[in-house]
Amino acid sequence: MHACGAVFDNPDLLACCVVGDGEAETGPLATSWHCNKFLNPTRDGAVLPILHLNGYKIANPTVLGRMNDEELTHLFTGYGWKPYFVEGHEPEAMHQLMAGTLDTIVNEIRSIQDNARNGGDLGLPTWPMVILRSPKGWTGPKTVDGKPVEGTWRAHQVPVADLQSKPEHVKILEDWMRSYRPEELFDENGKVISELAELAPKGDRRMGANPHANGGLLLRDLVMPDFRNYAVSVSKPGTENAEATRVLGKLLRDVMKLNADSKNFRVFGPDETASNRLEALYEVTDKQWMEPTLPVDEHLSHQGRVLEMLSEHMCQGWLEGYLLTGRHGFFSCYEAFIHIIDSMFNQHAKWLKVTRKIEWRRPIASLNYLLTSHVWRQDHNGFTHQDPGFIDHVVNKKADIVRVYLPPDANCLLSVADHCLRSRHYVNVIVAGKQPALQWLNIDSAIKHCTTGIGIWEWASTDNGAEPDAVMICAGDVPTLETLAAVDLLRQHFPDIRIRVVNVVDLMTIQPSTEHPHGLSDLDFDSMFAVRHDGPERS
Amino acid sequence: MHACGAVFDNPDLLACCVVGDGEAETGPLATSWHCNKFLNPTRDGAVLPILHLNGYKIANPTVLGRMNDEELTHLFTGYGWKPYFVEGHEPEAMHQLMAGTLDTIVNEIRSIQDNARNGGDLGLPTWPMVILRSPKGWTGPKTVDGKPVEGTWRAHQVPVADLQSKPEHVKILEDWMRSYRPEELFDENGKVISELAELAPKGDRRMGANPHANGGLLLRDLVMPDFRNYAVSVSKPGTENAEATRVLGKLLRDVMKLNADSKNFRVFGPDETASNRLEALYEVTDKQWMEPTLPVDEHLSHQGRVLEMLSEHMCQGWLEGYLLTGRHGFFSCYEAFIHIIDSMFNQHAKWLKVTRKIEWRRPIASLNYLLTSHVWRQDHNGFTHQDPGFIDHVVNKKADIVRVYLPPDANCLLSVADHCLRSRHYVNVIVAGKQPALQWLNIDSAIKHCTTGIGIWEWASTDNGAEPDAVMICAGDVPTLETLAAVDLLRQHFPDIRIRVVNVVDLMTIQPSTEHPHGLSDLDFDSMFAVRHDGPERS
Repeated sequence: MHACGAVFDNPDLLACCVVGDGEAETGPLATSWHCNKFLNPTRDGAVLPILHLNGYKIANPTVLGRMNDEELTHLFTGYGWKPYFVEGHEPEAMHQLMAGTLDTIVNEIRSIQDNARNGGDLGLPTWPMVILRSPKGWTGPKTVDGKPVEGTWRAHQVPVADLQSKPEHVKILEDWMRSYRPEELFDENGKVISELAELAPKGDRRMGANPHANGGLLLRDLVMPDFRNYAVSVSKPGTENAEATRVLGKLLRDVMKLNADSKNFRVFGPDETASNRLEALYEVTDKQWMEPTLPVDEHLSHQGRVLEMLSEHMCQGWLEGYLLTGRHGFFSCYEAFIHIIDSMFNQHAKWLKVTRKIEWRRPIASLNYLLTSHVWRQDHNGFTHQDPGFIDHVVNKKADIVRVYLPPDANCLLSVADHCLRSRHYVNVIVAGKQPALQWLNIDSAIKHCTTGIGIWEWASTDNGAEPDAVMICAGDVPTLETLAAVDLLRQHFPDIRIRVVNVVDLMTIQPSTEHPHGLSDLDFDSMFAVRHDGPERS
Repeated sequence: MHACGAVFDNPDLLACCVVGDGEAETGPLATSWHCNKFLNPTRDGAVLPILHLNGYKIANPTVLGRMNDEELTHLFTGYGWKPYFVEGHEPEAMHQLMAGTLDTIVNEIRSIQDNARNGGDLGLPTWPMVILRSPKGWTGPKTVDGKPVEGTWRAHQVPVADLQSKPEHVKILEDWMRSYRPEELFDENGKVISELAELAPKGDRRMGANPHANGGLLLRDLVMPDFRNYAVSVSKPGTENAEATRVLGKLLRDVMKLNADSKNFRVFGPDETASNRLEALYEVTDKQWMEPTLPVDEHLSHQGRVLEMLSEHMCQGWLEGYLLTGRHGFFSCYEAFIHIIDSMFNQHAKWLKVTRKIEWRRPIASLNYLLTSHVWRQDHNGFTHQDPGFIDHVVNKKADIVRVYLPPDANCLLSVADHCLRSRHYVNVIVAGKQPALQWLNIDSAIKHCTTGIGIWEWASTDNGAEPDAVMICAGDVPTLETLAAVDLLRQHFPDIRIRVVNVVDLMTIQPSTEHPHGLSDLDFDSMFAVRHDGPERS
């Protein structure tokens, strides 16, 4: 799925993707074979999957490795691929077989692309793939301690251990290493001989120097419309209604339109873009879809820039691949179901953390999540669709990588989304509802509020800057509504009470400034929350 | 995968499992078709999957729905199933077609089972399945507001809305409801006519009354060996080494052995049971495996009671199905990768929470996770294999459902595991390392410590019950080792310092007792942690 994300809008790219037979047992990989149904040969590059069946994982044979060629042919033909088998164990013959097969396949891919690009767009092609069967631990020790190693799961980890106590193991290791004939590969100074060194590709054709592998090099800023133009009118707080995500949809529509020529922005969702009320996107683009269409279908085309499949894993993988190759994206998801990709988020966040410190790696666009259809409003779905825990999962990551925003209304959502789409190398999590809701801030106030990330809402407070009797703190649209309703009741029943309302948009502001760059200083925190020093301390 | 978990060791059970074509796009479901490779017709029941292709999800056609019959036949033949198509839109004809197909299929399943059970165990059979193509919103309104509804994604949600303002919609709704001919189904009092009521199956054959759907009814206690018999000798704290999970493996082996006749205990793992050093299990059982085997294979057989597939989703789904039908299980997983099933854990925990309050539902066995190969010891794997965050995810759930244990050594792990295997209706998370590590408590001290869940380790403390200068608190095996090493250094450099060491096994003890039944009272907490009332308060 990552390879597929990488080749979207990259017509010249061929992403060769080697899949082990252990990995191939996982769910996400099992569905990702369907990604061919979303690749357009006229506009996207090609993915060449090599399913490498070496037959074993850590301690077991693999499910796919024990299937026979007939079963595998059925399976992958069914997934829509044309499998080429490369099988054997004699290295020289296998090299030739692989080289010949790759020549055939590359020609086949070119021919699919040429046909499609020369006006012959015929829909979903049958792309070739390789099924490579070779022994596990190939050319390693055949046996150790009388037990077979090459061609078994024993080759998965340390094939020869206990070198200190077992001299016969040292001999096995030496024989194995000598089988590479180092004397023919290196000169007397230990340098690779020039004849071999010259075989390496030059310049950008080296894998590590390919700019697609360091996507920040290719990254161009999005052309952004002025988000103020999408503002909803708020003449007085709490008097007008709007659906925040529907308002955002118009901004996303125009981001899509303004960057259509650059082909560097896509929106991803598990069949929920419309349900999450971002439909305005369909005024300017469609959903990319290569399977047959029927007259009843809407907004499906080979040229669409929205990607929808009912697999959060696939959306996440596509988006990661798209970002890592220097483009921009936006992923909207029901809040409860984003946990499906917790583990993928983990690994992407780790990658962002580590690469931030590698000088030659250029920052990539942030991974932007909009979590909507959130816990508070599951009017007809109920408990199964409720889970606000992704925020907890995210804030476990390092502070220089993650941002969490809880805009209280539509204008704040616009401001936050604009900021996120311009940002780099973060994971931004935005939580915002889609239902009609009261609006609080006009666009100027919203910008000011979101820029600070936290603020006292004076118009809702009654403390007039004096020490309050109560501080009411809220973050998120529904909690803000409920808090303001509570304030309203308090004011009715206790007209003399001094109340301060604090609203948090940027969740990181309430961390100490020593822990997060957005955090308030202790002084500002104490002042905002009216901390008395005879009261409970911050912790 | 849940259906498969339900029929393990239930030879008379046929689990019919209807899969929507939306769900079929998800990763976990895409790999779960391979579960046929783990079902033994001699000992397990059968799963009959009905892939229901109604063609659409919320807002799109489905990937599988738009595949043609030939592609689907390849795909499911490749997965190892024999697909039967039931396709059409005329209800009466479809009912007959479905009934006839089910008759054929049930006979085929019986014949596979009879062959296998009458001494003809021939390995992996080709089980039948149904591919049902019917219109979405079948028999609902054909069109609303001039747009087709039946047979389109529009039927996914509310097909007829705005009844207050659109009288023509009321007419559509009425015609639709009347199409069921209620006057033929109900008597004048609104009761179902007896002729129809009598069609319902009697007694346990009603789906809701089937004890397999209320597994607690079938649940029998495990026969448990005395876990004290597996204790490692600890003559003095910090002098002997043991591998905690290897010790646990011996206990699990004997649980497996003692319950072999009852066939109600299984161990699940994503190819990691041996890596997690629970190999002792293989002295008494194997891994269940129905694909072909080779002479080089070890511990694979049709009769094994350990289930391994490199899919945490599959392990989780199998285990849930097994527990929900009244059996016991144990899932060991690398700590970092358990996040893969965060979302499945969520839904199981919700189910436990809700059913705890439904009187007629009997408690089921707890879902036991052993998280090992943990964050602290990823000596050769590194950052990708590190993530301790599952605990955070788990403690978000209601206190009456989740338990988290961090045993500091092998004897504590034995005590905790014994407790978890006897417990009901919880999710138990045990985090424990597999590497050789110093041992602290003999078995009697371990039992005492784990029963309390938290305690002052007097042998490691120097406060002699007086007010300490420092309280050193640790939870988990490696943090305990590091804490004790720090205490050792402190004692060397500051011989007069009064140190108290507190070790936490049951993480829930440090929640307030008002929030968790295992929580300490404020008084006990203050006393244990030597809280001074001029110092920071608990929060």
